[in-house]
Amino acid sequence: MQNSEDGKTFFVKIHAPWEVLVTYAEVLGIKMPIKLSDIPRPKYPPLRYMLGPVKLPATVKYPHPEYFTAQFSRHRQELFLIEDEATFFPSSTRNRIVYYILSRCPFGVEEGKKKIGIERLLNSNTYLSAYPLHDGQYWKPSRTPSHINERYTLHQNWARFSYFYKEQPLDLIRNYYGEKIGIYFVFLGYYTEMLLIAALVGLACFIYGLLSMENNQTSTEICDPNIGGQMIMCPLCDGVCDYWRLNTTCLHSKFSHLFDNESTVFFALFMGIWVTLFLEFWKQRQARLEYEWDLVDFEEEQQQLQLRPEFEAMCKRKKMNPVTKEMEPHMPRCHRIPWYFVSGTTVIFGMALLLSSMVSVIVYRLSVFATFASFMESEATLQNVKSYLTPQLATSLSGSCLNCIVILILNFFYEKISAWITKMEIPRTYQEYESSLTLKIFLFQFVNYYSACFYVAFFKGKLVGYPGKYTYMFNLWRSEECDPAGCLIELTTQLTIIMIAKQIFGNVYEACQPLVFNWWRRRRTRTHSEKLYSRWEQDHDLQAFGQLGLFYEYLETVIQFGFVTLFVASFPLAPLFALINNIVEIRVDAWKLTTQYRRPVAAKAHSIGVWQDILFGMAIISIATNAFIVAFTSDIIPRLVYFYAYSSNSSEPLSGYVNNSLSVFLIADFPNNTAPMEKKGFTTCRYRDYRNPPDHENKYVHNMQFWHVLAAKMAFIIVMEHIVLLFKFLLAWMIPDVPKDVIEKIKREKLMTVKIIHDFELNK
Amino acid sequence: MQNSEDGKTFFVKIHAPWEVLVTYAEVLGIKMPIKLSDIPRPKYPPLRYMLGPVKLPATVKYPHPEYFTAQFSRHRQELFLIEDEATFFPSSTRNRIVYYILSRCPFGVEEGKKKIGIERLLNSNTYLSAYPLHDGQYWKPSRTPSHINERYTLHQNWARFSYFYKEQPLDLIRNYYGEKIGIYFVFLGYYTEMLLIAALVGLACFIYGLLSMENNQTSTEICDPNIGGQMIMCPLCDGVCDYWRLNTTCLHSKFSHLFDNESTVFFALFMGIWVTLFLEFWKQRQARLEYEWDLVDFEEEQQQLQLRPEFEAMCKRKKMNPVTKEMEPHMPRCHRIPWYFVSGTTVIFGMALLLSSMVSVIVYRLSVFATFASFMESEATLQNVKSYLTPQLATSLSGSCLNCIVILILNFFYEKISAWITKMEIPRTYQEYESSLTLKIFLFQFVNYYSACFYVAFFKGKLVGYPGKYTYMFNLWRSEECDPAGCLIELTTQLTIIMIAKQIFGNVYEACQPLVFNWWRRRRTRTHSEKLYSRWEQDHDLQAFGQLGLFYEYLETVIQFGFVTLFVASFPLAPLFALINNIVEIRVDAWKLTTQYRRPVAAKAHSIGVWQDILFGMAIISIATNAFIVAFTSDIIPRLVYFYAYSSNSSEPLSGYVNNSLSVFLIADFPNNTAPMEKKGFTTCRYRDYRNPPDHENKYVHNMQFWHVLAAKMAFIIVMEHIVLLFKFLLAWMIPDVPKDVIEKIKREKLMTVKIIHDFELNK
Repeated sequence: MQNSEDGKTFFVKIHAPWEVLVTYAEVLGIKMPIKLSDIPRPKYPPLRYMLGPVKLPATVKYPHPEYFTAQFSRHRQELFLIEDEATFFPSSTRNRIVYYILSRCPFGVEEGKKKIGIERLLNSNTYLSAYPLHDGQYWKPSRTPSHINERYTLHQNWARFSYFYKEQPLDLIRNYYGEKIGIYFVFLGYYTEMLLIAALVGLACFIYGLLSMENNQTSTEICDPNIGGQMIMCPLCDGVCDYWRLNTTCLHSKFSHLFDNESTVFFALFMGIWVTLFLEFWKQRQARLEYEWDLVDFEEEQQQLQLRPEFEAMCKRKKMNPVTKEMEPHMPRCHRIPWYFVSGTTVIFGMALLLSSMVSVIVYRLSVFATFASFMESEATLQNVKSYLTPQLATSLSGSCLNCIVILILNFFYEKISAWITKMEIPRTYQEYESSLTLKIFLFQFVNYYSACFYVAFFKGKLVGYPGKYTYMFNLWRSEECDPAGCLIELTTQLTIIMIAKQIFGNVYEACQPLVFNWWRRRRTRTHSEKLYSRWEQDHDLQAFGQLGLFYEYLETVIQFGFVTLFVASFPLAPLFALINNIVEIRVDAWKLTTQYRRPVAAKAHSIGVWQDILFGMAIISIATNAFIVAFTSDIIPRLVYFYAYSSNSSEPLSGYVNNSLSVFLIADFPNNTAPMEKKGFTTCRYRDYRNPPDHENKYVHNMQFWHVLAAKMAFIIVMEHIVLLFKFLLAWMIPDVPKDVIEKIKREKLMTVKIIHDFELNK
Repeated sequence: MQNSEDGKTFFVKIHAPWEVLVTYAEVLGIKMPIKLSDIPRPKYPPLRYMLGPVKLPATVKYPHPEYFTAQFSRHRQELFLIEDEATFFPSSTRNRIVYYILSRCPFGVEEGKKKIGIERLLNSNTYLSAYPLHDGQYWKPSRTPSHINERYTLHQNWARFSYFYKEQPLDLIRNYYGEKIGIYFVFLGYYTEMLLIAALVGLACFIYGLLSMENNQTSTEICDPNIGGQMIMCPLCDGVCDYWRLNTTCLHSKFSHLFDNESTVFFALFMGIWVTLFLEFWKQRQARLEYEWDLVDFEEEQQQLQLRPEFEAMCKRKKMNPVTKEMEPHMPRCHRIPWYFVSGTTVIFGMALLLSSMVSVIVYRLSVFATFASFMESEATLQNVKSYLTPQLATSLSGSCLNCIVILILNFFYEKISAWITKMEIPRTYQEYESSLTLKIFLFQFVNYYSACFYVAFFKGKLVGYPGKYTYMFNLWRSEECDPAGCLIELTTQLTIIMIAKQIFGNVYEACQPLVFNWWRRRRTRTHSEKLYSRWEQDHDLQAFGQLGLFYEYLETVIQFGFVTLFVASFPLAPLFALINNIVEIRVDAWKLTTQYRRPVAAKAHSIGVWQDILFGMAIISIATNAFIVAFTSDIIPRLVYFYAYSSNSSEPLSGYVNNSLSVFLIADFPNNTAPMEKKGFTTCRYRDYRNPPDHENKYVHNMQFWHVLAAKMAFIIVMEHIVLLFKFLLAWMIPDVPKDVIEKIKREKLMTVKIIHDFELNK
């Protein structure tokens, strides 16, 4: 029992002696070293000199040699390589054991039932918190040379931003925080490495767009005062908007070319392959890690499968467990149904709320657009800005920002509610709790972050109708048209805003929130010396790394993965932004964990769990979305059709495309009150579509070229999807999930372990 | 040493005493019972009374109670439930052990190297053969009641055709033949059960076609002498063929409706789901079997990973095995490259041969068609047959038969060659040998059986051109047109012929070949009594079940699976035919194994291996092929487009479709010598396509309707593929690979086994 510096908090320091450790190591089936491994460490690749700066010193990278391991057994302690009883079990194992005991410790009887576990005591506020201690202070090494301050080593070699280009000391992280947190950083690191390739290719595509921006036929024609300047476009809104000339969007069309060029198709194909390789190599990486971290035979986390105290408290009935044939608390399904119902309703209601907020943002855009357009038309001062800021751009910028704010607010409330609802479902185990919550929050976030992009990519500007017969939303607002430079640039804008806003907000929040919080907690003790301000109290003043801490980190990464894959055809720089974000993210997370959080209880995990399925699903969906974006959102297919089938100029096949892609409308055909008031000196205006001219017998009906383009678009989708899927399945089939050398190493370890134990038993 | 009845053959009878069995059971890690299982057997389903006749008696179905098992160990024999040393190890385990010893038995020294194994002695003809004995005669039970003649039980309950509706005694098969053969019959049985559902739905679709055959608009119009009778069709070949009237194909168009109606779309969708469920439930079935047959921890077949004697004999160099760290024969990759090259060339050459034979069959059809057409035109006697047998049908019938014969002949030679080539590659293990051969033969057979169907489904009639500008193959033969009733019926014909011919030929061959062979071998001994004609000699006179025996059985099943899935949209009766074939196949295989073959050496396997990947691949491909068949081969989409967009008759929307689907050609536009000689009293003829009429400014160019139909076709493919794939992934994600109860059972068994062994060790 230790008192605190403030004199109000009391601490109980729990220490596990050797005998206890040994007993529970056997109960938990912890694997411990029995012999130095005779499998050589992987050699450095041939480029070792180039990779030199990226590498960490070998002592940090491999804090201890590799061993063959066996499940610890009290009765054959001599088998194990015990040099020093104090350091034989790594600190993460020790705190895992202590927490295992604490969470099963009986502390009283209530109505004939034993009351069990620290969690219940924490819930009832008998104790404020229970946490393992950090190794020491992160800013100075341990004073006794025999004891290594791992927290300091981690901070020096991992949690500093100036080390952003270095590899991570993964074995050290595993030793200090356990496998579950370790595997998160392995995943993040692997993802970042793979992003590097995608970012480079994406950058190359962007540079290609940049280089070809000036001399591309389409925007040259739009900018040409004799071509684009002569084209009178139909007004963008009813009544107030005026006719406008195509060359006002000159600059914008150049920007549009940056993302909407031939390299888009290439990049969409490339990312289809990249995402497959990403998942396949991740499986290999995970298999390799399973071997290196001795997780081969590990099945489930004991801690995860343990019944939740809340569940035990609520259960009145018992039922036989089919595995152990013991009676255990059981809740009939019918008792839970009301809560499932409630949570189902909440999810649906949440989504409905989301979609309706989406619709209201659209309505905002529709209603504001006319205002913007007429305002910009009338204000003389804005005439200079006009070439940069079309009314569409202004609307979509402000709409995106609005959307972004709505997303963040809804997110905040939804998370609180769904955590509460999930608790009410009384899940049996912590695993059930987590997967129920994962499903809820992921579904919501998926809709939340991506619905706006889906709308812009696949619905906006598709069902506009044509002048004189526009479609109206709720019979009030005219449907949005795409930007004259194409729909793709709008998707790019939308994506950039959401993605960058989310990432900056996320990282700043992640970094500042614990900083502010800890600053507040420590405000009184900041000046005290360490003698007065004990280690346990220092740690107590840090923030707790909640059970869902890792969940939110994964969620963030997976949502970002969605941005990188689902809409990548519209924005080849997305991988680059993600890369930059992740480099920061790794160090922010590392810094947060080592300096701002209490040390979390170590937990085991041998994979990233349900997130892998989600990534796989996204990879499949991304093939479809990218094919659709190239076909329907970008302007490549119409341009190609013109190039091959309609161009009459053989030396410059694309010349005349702009004129060809705009249909003609007779101003006299406008219904009442929708045409601009003042009469102009022309009788026709142009609009983006392939329809018959007014003098045709079926006027304003889709013409032959429309059907040609449509057929080409769909043919493109079919061909692209089949090619990418074919490659995907071929690659997935050809690349084994577990690399051959890992299989051999696992076999070798098994063989040797059995042999060593056998020999040991014989000589006993 | 036993002499034979013919006085020329000498037999060595090998018997494994208890001590040997016990030693090698430990070496091979064979699992033996330690305790009666306390997990109840699955109860009969609620429909037990209905399923009564299908069930076998419980004594046959479960020849022994279920046990918890553990790897056998000599030093704790008391742990195991040994009642009788003679029957403790099942006979399949005993023969596996004996064969294991034989195949490692040294028999001499050559150039300082030990010569090892029965295989080498068999190769050098020192011994004629080595085989385990059958249990006794299949036609009478064993005379001693203590010893059960399992062969007799199998023959009584399994290998009789009159039991075709019964379930199979799978545990008995496993006991007698080992797991590898057992799992083949489990798969075949499961496949047959699943086919039942598909066959019923297919039959329903067929019946729907049959019922709506008489009053469907399209064929009514074709048959109507005032509509179809008035339509003059352009000649089907150049010069010799004459114009013809559409109503000559009246009957044929009715048949075509049988398969080419709305239910086709439904059936294609249904089969997309069926195939997914088939694979998912198979994974579950396999997982259940793994538990029931104690294969949970079993990794690879020792026998399979053993180095092949041929390999050992050819190897000069040694290399360290990374697992055992022992030196073992090694062949550098560069020594094998020439043979890989040869085998690659063979495969490509084989395929090229195949495709060229395909092309020559097409050429045959092209060249013969004109002859047929003119012959049938001129022969007055054939005028009555004409409504049944159009020239197209005659050509395609004879073409299919020719194709079928070519297939069978090429197959025969290719198999011999590829087996020889694979031997020459000197694969390391038997597993490598088998997978190399599997790949070669499967690729070949895939092309062999399906290429004709692919041609008819996706190429025939697609690039015909139009009258006056037909496309010519090698500038000689005009491309084939589809039957006037649609392309689908031709695919159906092709499929029916290949599938049925293959199945009948296959079953008859499988049944007759061993029968004739054994009859020949036994011709002299048939009359002798058993005393003179010993059991070992009787077995010796049977045929050997080669190592590739099972391979061919799987191949047959998988190729059939391809017919059932890949082209099922064109032929809903395919599952029914397959069902009938498989019911016969199971009993033929059973009969063959129990009565006509020597008993094969038992082998272990815990899955159907590479075949599962192949089935999975086919399932994916089938989604695409079926979508393309419905869109491009059948006439549904053009009919629907007419129905919704072009029909002017609102009460009978499909009326006029026939007229609408045929374009008009001006006879005067025929180039020289391609039009029929004699002049007729009409100036235009009709052909199947959507092109502008001769009086249009762009005459004979595809008209608007063509593009509408094309867009509809591609939209259909996109929608159908996405829906089916979505369902596929959802189902695959929702249905766990290992059912929950099996996971629990496995855990229970593990827990109990560990506990029993632990208790045993404590009490020792």
